[in-house]
Amino acid sequence: MTPTSAATATGHHPSGPGTAPHGYIAQKDAYLKRLRRIEGQARGLQRMVEQEQYCIDILTQVSAMTSALRSVALGLLDEHLQHCVVRAAQEGGEEAEAKLHEASQAIARLVRS
Amino acid sequence: MTPTSAATATGHHPSGPGTAPHGYIAQKDAYLKRLRRIEGQARGLQRMVEQEQYCIDILTQVSAMTSALRSVALGLLDEHLQHCVVRAAQEGGEEAEAKLHEASQAIARLVRS
Amino acid sequence: MTPTSAATATGHHPSGPGTAPHGYIAQKDAYLKRLRRIEGQARGLQRMVEQEQYCIDILTQVSAMTSALRSVALGLLDEHLQHCVVRAAQEGGEEAEAKLHEASQAIARLVRS
Amino acid sequence: MTPTSAATATGHHPSGPGTAPHGYIAQKDAYLKRLRRIEGQARGLQRMVEQEQYCIDILTQVSAMTSALRSVALGLLDEHLQHCVVRAAQEGGEEAEAKLHEASQAIARLVRS
Repeated sequence: MTPTSAATATGHHPSGPGTAPHGYIAQKDAYLKRLRRIEGQARGLQRMVEQEQYCIDILTQVSAMTSALRSVALGLLDEHLQHCVVRAAQEGGEEAEAKLHEASQAIARLVRS
Repeated sequence: MTPTSAATATGHHPSGPGTAPHGYIAQKDAYLKRLRRIEGQARGLQRMVEQEQYCIDILTQVSAMTSALRSVALGLLDEHLQHCVVRAAQEGGEEAEAKLHEASQAIARLVRS
Repeated sequence: MTPTSAATATGHHPSGPGTAPHGYIAQKDAYLKRLRRIEGQARGLQRMVEQEQYCIDILTQVSAMTSALRSVALGLLDEHLQHCVVRAAQEGGEEAEAKLHEASQAIARLVRS
Repeated sequence: MTPTSAATATGHHPSGPGTAPHGYIAQKDAYLKRLRRIEGQARGLQRMVEQEQYCIDILTQVSAMTSALRSVALGLLDEHLQHCVVRAAQEGGEEAEAKLHEASQAIARLVRS
């Protein structure tokens, strides 16, 4: 698993030679598969609306899709803590503090979304 | 806007002649547009993972997408209460009770998803 | 169970003779019991902080307390739909519309809290 | 700020001499104050039910209380990441992994509560 040029394209989050890639990348294919399934759920919802299906049935699918998204988010966050945050903590200093602040804010957005 | 055959295809939720269609149908196009945008967000997330972008940036997009889904759900629920539930309440009887129980369960799923 | 003077004290939500009391009142004692237990959880959390217990153990209790509150809210909402909203729907008119709008907003606040 | 005997009473989370106390303890008084206010909200809710106040007004207070609890949880989690998790990450090994796994599970419980 090597960092691609795309990874360094984010600019302020380089993961060049000598630094490990983002935590989730080891499971990149699994995440892509889950996101494709979520995309399929979004298309399924359009079909249900198109066919004027019953509101409650649509709501049930929206809840299932929201749960699937939540799971992806919790997975990404777990990998982020285990890799990026641990690495930053070991290096210490301002960078570590910034990374932790950033993680806390992401958690808050997640909890409130 | 008349109920289409698709609407009656749901079987146990007929909205044939004499009954009004589901509440959200008056805004069908607006809902389809919002769901297409959500589908686009799901594709955008796949692109971000594909390009190995920074975990926190992906999480920010997941939160935005979850909020968009929540908004759609709250909109659908509002229409459902204003149309299907009101109609059932006016008719009364067991059907009304069943509809209200069903709405409460949909709300609970939504709150917990 | 008769509406008490306290119920009419809310002013703009009278439930005088001829109108039924709010839906949850039939289960008033059960709700009071649940809320007392939640108050106890709030006191338990203070004890944990006072005793400088482990953060994660405190968070587990906060999650349990949040779930208990959510359950109370979903119960109250269900009673509200089954009684106040149904009654308003049967009476129809502007009052019904206002009640439904109000219920939808309460659901939105609940989902986002 | 010294770890009290109560803190070590949790057994598997000792914070004896040489180890730092849990992150939130520096703000112990602020947390106690917030939790006392939340306890007051729980009592306020009982009063509202006792007085048979309007369901929607009660629900509004429940939402406010849930938000206050969420804020406390996010604060505690932030302190936990900045102190306990950083410390564990610096020490490394199995302990670090266990602490991160534990934090991820607490986040998941929080998101789903």
